[in-house]
Amino acid sequence: MSIVVVGSVAFDTIETPEGRVERAIGGSATYFSMAASYFVPVKLVAVAGEDFGDEHKSILRERGVDLDGLTIVEGGKTFFWEGRYGKDPNERLTVATELNVFEGFQPVLPQQYRDTDWIFLGNIDPVIQSQVLDQASGRPHVGCDTMNFWIERKSDELRDVLRRVDILFINDEEAKQLSGEFNLVQAGQALLEMGPEVIVIKKGEHGAFLITEEFRFVSPAYPLRDVVDPTGAGDSFAGGFMGYLAGTSRMDQPHLRRAMLYGTATASFTCERYSVERLQELTRDAIADRFDELVGITSVERDQNG
Amino acid sequence: MSIVVVGSVAFDTIETPEGRVERAIGGSATYFSMAASYFVPVKLVAVAGEDFGDEHKSILRERGVDLDGLTIVEGGKTFFWEGRYGKDPNERLTVATELNVFEGFQPVLPQQYRDTDWIFLGNIDPVIQSQVLDQASGRPHVGCDTMNFWIERKSDELRDVLRRVDILFINDEEAKQLSGEFNLVQAGQALLEMGPEVIVIKKGEHGAFLITEEFRFVSPAYPLRDVVDPTGAGDSFAGGFMGYLAGTSRMDQPHLRRAMLYGTATASFTCERYSVERLQELTRDAIADRFDELVGITSVERDQNG
Repeated sequence: MSIVVVGSVAFDTIETPEGRVERAIGGSATYFSMAASYFVPVKLVAVAGEDFGDEHKSILRERGVDLDGLTIVEGGKTFFWEGRYGKDPNERLTVATELNVFEGFQPVLPQQYRDTDWIFLGNIDPVIQSQVLDQASGRPHVGCDTMNFWIERKSDELRDVLRRVDILFINDEEAKQLSGEFNLVQAGQALLEMGPEVIVIKKGEHGAFLITEEFRFVSPAYPLRDVVDPTGAGDSFAGGFMGYLAGTSRMDQPHLRRAMLYGTATASFTCERYSVERLQELTRDAIADRFDELVGITSVERDQNG
Repeated sequence: MSIVVVGSVAFDTIETPEGRVERAIGGSATYFSMAASYFVPVKLVAVAGEDFGDEHKSILRERGVDLDGLTIVEGGKTFFWEGRYGKDPNERLTVATELNVFEGFQPVLPQQYRDTDWIFLGNIDPVIQSQVLDQASGRPHVGCDTMNFWIERKSDELRDVLRRVDILFINDEEAKQLSGEFNLVQAGQALLEMGPEVIVIKKGEHGAFLITEEFRFVSPAYPLRDVVDPTGAGDSFAGGFMGYLAGTSRMDQPHLRRAMLYGTATASFTCERYSVERLQELTRDAIADRFDELVGITSVERDQNG
C-alpha cells in the first residue's frame, strides 16, 4: 500500500516575530509527503528547478519518499514563496510569489504509480487535477485540496474534478465561497452534493469539521502553547489524514474519525518549528501520544446520575 | 441546592435577515436563568422598570426562577438593546443601547440568598461584582463573566474580583485582551494566574476551551444547520455550565468536562429561535439527547492495530 501525492515543492522564506528562515523547503506536496510518510510509503509527483539539489531531495528521501515522479527542469528555478507572520500567527502577509517552473507543471505519473489505490491532489489547477486522475489505471481513493483562486477562476473545472473526488479538504472561508452558504453545516451539505463522500472543512486554530451523509465529526486544534510557523499546517493535516487511511486501507467511519485526529496531530507538530524541521524528526510514537492527548482533550465520561 | 445569578434583564429588539422581534425578553441574567433552570433552582438578582410586567415575570416563573431578588423601579424603564444580524450571524450591529434603570443597578442579595453555595456574576461593573460577593455569607463557588468594556476601563477592579472567582467565562478576543497574549493557551494560563481555578474561553461558532492547572478540554459548538438568533448564546452556555455543576454540587474534572457539553447544548438551543423562546419549552431529555450528540461528534474508538 502507498499513496501518490501531486502538488508543489517550493522554497519558502518565512519571517515571524521570532525569526526568519531563508529558502527552506516547502510546498504543499512536500508537507503532505513528510506528514503522510509516518503512516504509509509516499510517492511524490512534482516539479522543481535545478536549484533543488541533493540536500533538498535527501530531506524527502530520509522519510522514504519515492522521488521517481519528481521532475527537475534543467536551467529552471523552483517555485518560491515569501511570507511574513504577525504576532498573531493568523495574520499572514505574502511578500513574494514566484511560480517559476511550477507555472508549466504538467504532472505525469510514472508507470509504476498508475495503479495506486490512494492519491492526493494538492492545491493545483483543477484542469491538471483531472488530468492526473485520467492517468490512474484503477479506481483510486482520491483526496483533493483547492483554494479560493481556483474557486473564483475555474469554478466549472473544479466542479468537474470534484465529481471524481472522495475526500475534499477545504478551509472554512473557501467552503462558504464554493457553496454560497454562510453556515458551515449547510456549506458541508452543499459540497457533498458536488460529489465527494467526505468533506473536511479546515478551520485552522479552531480545528476541523468532517461531514458525510452519515455522520459529522469535529476535532479541536491541538492547543499549542507556541506556534513558531504555521506554514504547511493544512497540507500536513491532509498528509496525516490521508496517510493514516491509506496505511490502513480503510475509509469507514471509525477510521475517518481517527484520521481527523491524526491529521490534527501531525499539523500541530508542523507548527512547532520552521519549514518541515519538526516533520523530519518525528516518531510514530510521538504522533500516537499526541493522538491520545487529543482524545483526552475532548473526552467525557457519561454521567451516572444526570 | 440552588444558584444565585446577578446580571441584567432587558428588552431586546432583534433583526435578522429572516425576521424581527420587538422588545422580547433578554439580558444576561435572563438567558442564564432560563438555561440553568433545567439543572438547578435559580434565584435572580436584577433590576427592571415598570414596563417589565407580569407577562414577562411569568416567563421566568414558569421555569421556577425565584424573583425575590428582582427589583422593579417605579416609573423606570427596563434596559433596552437593539441589534441587527447579517446573513452571517457573526456579523452583529448594535443599533441602540439604553441602559435606563440598569445604569443605577446596586444589587442587594435578599437575606435568604446570602448563604448560597453557587453564584454567577453576569457581565456587570466589576466593582458591583465585588460588592455582590461581599454580601455572600459563606464561601460560594463563583462563576463570572466580563467584557471588553470593563477590561479597558476597570482593569484593576476586574483583577480584584477575579481573585475571588472560581470559574471565569470570557470570549476569545477578551481573553487575549485581558491577558495580553495572542495564543489562547498562553492567554488561558495567564488568566489562571489572576485567580480563577477554571478559565472557560468561549469561541462562539468554534466552540469553547477550558483550561485549569491540571487539564484542558475543548468542546465543539453544536453544528446547527439554522442559526435563527445567536443573542444570549454565551449567557445560556454559562447557565447550562454553572447550572449543571450547581445541580450536582461538584466541580471536579469529570463534572467540568460534562459542564462544557451541557453549556454547549443549551447555548445551541437558544440560537434556534428568537429571544428565550426555545429555552421556555426545553426538556431535560432534549438537553441530554443533544449532550449525547455532542459526545458522538467528538468521540473516537482507539485503534486496534495503529
